[in-house]
Amino acid sequence: MASPSSLSPPEVPMEMHAENRAKLIKALRLHLSSSSRPLQGFVFLQGGEEQTRYCTDHIELFRQESYFAYLFGVREPGFYGAIDIATGKSFLFAPRLDADYAVWLGKIKPLSYFKEMYMVNMVCYTDEIVGVLHDHYGGSGKPLLFLLHGLNTDSNKFSKPAQLEEMEKFDTDLSTLHPILIECRIIKSDLELALIQYANDISSEAHVEVMRKARVDMKEYQLESIFLHHIYMYGGCRHCSYTCICATGDNSAVLHYGHAAAPNDRTLNDGDMALLDMGAEYHFYGSDITCSFPVNGNFTSDQLLIYNAVLKAHNTVISMMKPGVSWVNMHKLAERIILESLKIEDLILGDVDDMMVERLGAVFMPHGLGHFLGIDTHDPGGYAKGMERPKEPGLKALRTIRELQEGMVITVEPGCYFIDALLDPAMQSSNTSKFFNQEKISRFKSFGGVRIESDVYVTCNGCKNLTKCPRETWEIEAVMAGAPWPLDKIPAHTDNTRGR
Amino acid sequence: MASPSSLSPPEVPMEMHAENRAKLIKALRLHLSSSSRPLQGFVFLQGGEEQTRYCTDHIELFRQESYFAYLFGVREPGFYGAIDIATGKSFLFAPRLDADYAVWLGKIKPLSYFKEMYMVNMVCYTDEIVGVLHDHYGGSGKPLLFLLHGLNTDSNKFSKPAQLEEMEKFDTDLSTLHPILIECRIIKSDLELALIQYANDISSEAHVEVMRKARVDMKEYQLESIFLHHIYMYGGCRHCSYTCICATGDNSAVLHYGHAAAPNDRTLNDGDMALLDMGAEYHFYGSDITCSFPVNGNFTSDQLLIYNAVLKAHNTVISMMKPGVSWVNMHKLAERIILESLKIEDLILGDVDDMMVERLGAVFMPHGLGHFLGIDTHDPGGYAKGMERPKEPGLKALRTIRELQEGMVITVEPGCYFIDALLDPAMQSSNTSKFFNQEKISRFKSFGGVRIESDVYVTCNGCKNLTKCPRETWEIEAVMAGAPWPLDKIPAHTDNTRGR
Repeated sequence: MASPSSLSPPEVPMEMHAENRAKLIKALRLHLSSSSRPLQGFVFLQGGEEQTRYCTDHIELFRQESYFAYLFGVREPGFYGAIDIATGKSFLFAPRLDADYAVWLGKIKPLSYFKEMYMVNMVCYTDEIVGVLHDHYGGSGKPLLFLLHGLNTDSNKFSKPAQLEEMEKFDTDLSTLHPILIECRIIKSDLELALIQYANDISSEAHVEVMRKARVDMKEYQLESIFLHHIYMYGGCRHCSYTCICATGDNSAVLHYGHAAAPNDRTLNDGDMALLDMGAEYHFYGSDITCSFPVNGNFTSDQLLIYNAVLKAHNTVISMMKPGVSWVNMHKLAERIILESLKIEDLILGDVDDMMVERLGAVFMPHGLGHFLGIDTHDPGGYAKGMERPKEPGLKALRTIRELQEGMVITVEPGCYFIDALLDPAMQSSNTSKFFNQEKISRFKSFGGVRIESDVYVTCNGCKNLTKCPRETWEIEAVMAGAPWPLDKIPAHTDNTRGR
Repeated sequence: MASPSSLSPPEVPMEMHAENRAKLIKALRLHLSSSSRPLQGFVFLQGGEEQTRYCTDHIELFRQESYFAYLFGVREPGFYGAIDIATGKSFLFAPRLDADYAVWLGKIKPLSYFKEMYMVNMVCYTDEIVGVLHDHYGGSGKPLLFLLHGLNTDSNKFSKPAQLEEMEKFDTDLSTLHPILIECRIIKSDLELALIQYANDISSEAHVEVMRKARVDMKEYQLESIFLHHIYMYGGCRHCSYTCICATGDNSAVLHYGHAAAPNDRTLNDGDMALLDMGAEYHFYGSDITCSFPVNGNFTSDQLLIYNAVLKAHNTVISMMKPGVSWVNMHKLAERIILESLKIEDLILGDVDDMMVERLGAVFMPHGLGHFLGIDTHDPGGYAKGMERPKEPGLKALRTIRELQEGMVITVEPGCYFIDALLDPAMQSSNTSKFFNQEKISRFKSFGGVRIESDVYVTCNGCKNLTKCPRETWEIEAVMAGAPWPLDKIPAHTDNTRGR
């Protein structure tokens, strides 16, 4: 049997994390110098611990905390890590495992294993942290530890500074590290980019596999299962970047469908659109991809209308992206293109500039255009200190308002949804009711929505789309009818305007 | 294409949880009466909350806390539940969701939905708890809440009593509920049994699918992926009962292989044994099944020897199980059978009674024979108050020392492993070195181990094995060679003694 994948899991270069550390230390030294502070002390992070389900001894599959993963790449729980600001030397501290570990959990790896595996200068046990850091500290007095403390602007949670019983033996700085480390994470290195590209490659392929196998009368979760199996079986990806969203019919208007209270359990009906938002993670680096398609393999005229409106926004934004471009403007551009498309088809009426003033775009696309992607699906740094979150509908949902910079990876995910909770008030509001062609809009009451999401890397003078899914409606129809992907050739007669 | 499964996800009867509540209230009233306490107050539990990965806004897939699941079956996070001891009436308290929920997470379900879905007497919002419970309390003074507080003897963690800001408006009892609720969970109802049977059915089928598709040069995680895909695609099982253990070669001597630090990533070699411990969970109820087989589809004589020693222990224990039987004795019986088999083949020497005195069995099987299974993989109640955990090797790993009772579901999972960390000291110890045929044993140095695990229900006069995997070596070889399962007929010439 031919493998349904052309890929196999690549070797992971641990140099990547060494580079990440070097980048941080360079930025941190620059910052310290500029404020005339001594180049001494240690960046000091605590890795994640295994988590359990409540009081049972069910242990969830461990996944390293993201900042720790960025700097050290360590896959095992219970570690600490340090980087000496003076010398750039890196230290890992491994938990001292009980002899029983060898019986239940595996061979106890020697410290030399971790030193070689994770390419650090020194590995000791966690009970040796105080001594080792005191020995290596070049300054006088207590060694200074730069701890990680700061707000994640997506989750509104604070990162947890490393905790030690003997923390009183150190001086600590809780404010310097977090913003500098975030700036490092925003700009991806080539090695990081290669992993994000791989996660995109295997996920793109898996999305194609799902399109090929989708059938009326299947359950939404079966599409999820096909995706998960493809990325793990052929891609070695044990984790997803986030819980799979497999929404069909009117569920596709629920932006974060798929969680336990809405668990991808609807039956696919003839005539439904599917909106599948799924991405694999490989060695911590993720992908975040949405494909929308008709579950029966053929777009209706209404589906073409909405799909092509979103696709035009997706493609136009990508064509404009380059360093210096404002992400807020890109969001507004996407809104405008979708509104213009809806207006051409008479779903909405009036002047698009007026609509923009009334933020009508946010009725159809209440979420932001996209977010940084990396070790976290919503990679941090969307709002640096001092950047204020917009208050207007739609814009307030933006996870970043930065200008684009070379090296960023950001999702481009315009969508157009028919969400009762937003449409009903907007169609009744005195400010916006005039824009709606009530009769035409009502035809879309249970349409759901369309989202098209790609992961895009900003280059020095443009950008590169890392996602490789069928996007044109005729590509989707061809793949769903059994054509290979990428298509061998462009069909002679494409029918992209059917129903218009 | 014919479906590789004969199963489809069954309807879940929420009556099951109503029965569970009734059983608890009956037991609780009996207890209160016997200590002359008034039959008043409420059982009051807090359901689980969604959990995140550290400070990012990545939300893990929610799975209800097990005690709450037992009594209420609620799949959504953020609930509280109460049962009125006087009347038996049940209450659910749902979180009051923000209007934004409808945009991001789905239609906001009315309280009537939860009332009907979960078959309780009344549903209110969590901010109404104080008022509702005061209104319904028949006694005088503050209403008495029976909260859940007690030790899980597998995890050594304490369950978390329900927390409320206004707890001072109630009297609380932290000691009565936990032991009584545990006794309820130990004895499975028919409706619970049916779900455990279903989880066993789909998992047994998935194990067969894995056996059929296993090939030399595959990766261990590919076997995991095949299993996960089968149980979700055809069985609707989104969760496993525990992290899959897919151990091949010497990894099969690592009892809890498969976690993040030993992530099922070895390549299958010709001549390896595979030990696959994987079980699906369906509506909270789990399965826990281990199959061991040669990855190339044919047992060698050494593999036959170890496998059949374990199989004999597995089958003999099951043939003996019935109410009143001591689980400690069953554990010792399994040890004895394995030791006898190893002695027949000259791996060990001397008198088996002497070996039993020296606890030699624990060198080859350091874990317990089995554990309760239900909503938790290691279902609670193994040690009631006053039961003391044995101290001897092997026996101390027993998760229960109870006598069997009708209605228990318990795993039977004898194993025989060659674990350096245990064998090396035992072969050197003055008490036990005499038992080892050093030359023969050394042949098994990198053998790994064999475990055979079934889930067994104790009936009124015997037991029923809920697991339906190929167990005889000729069954395994036939299925791996492409035979249907169950086998159409028993082969005329079975070669179960090859290599002896």
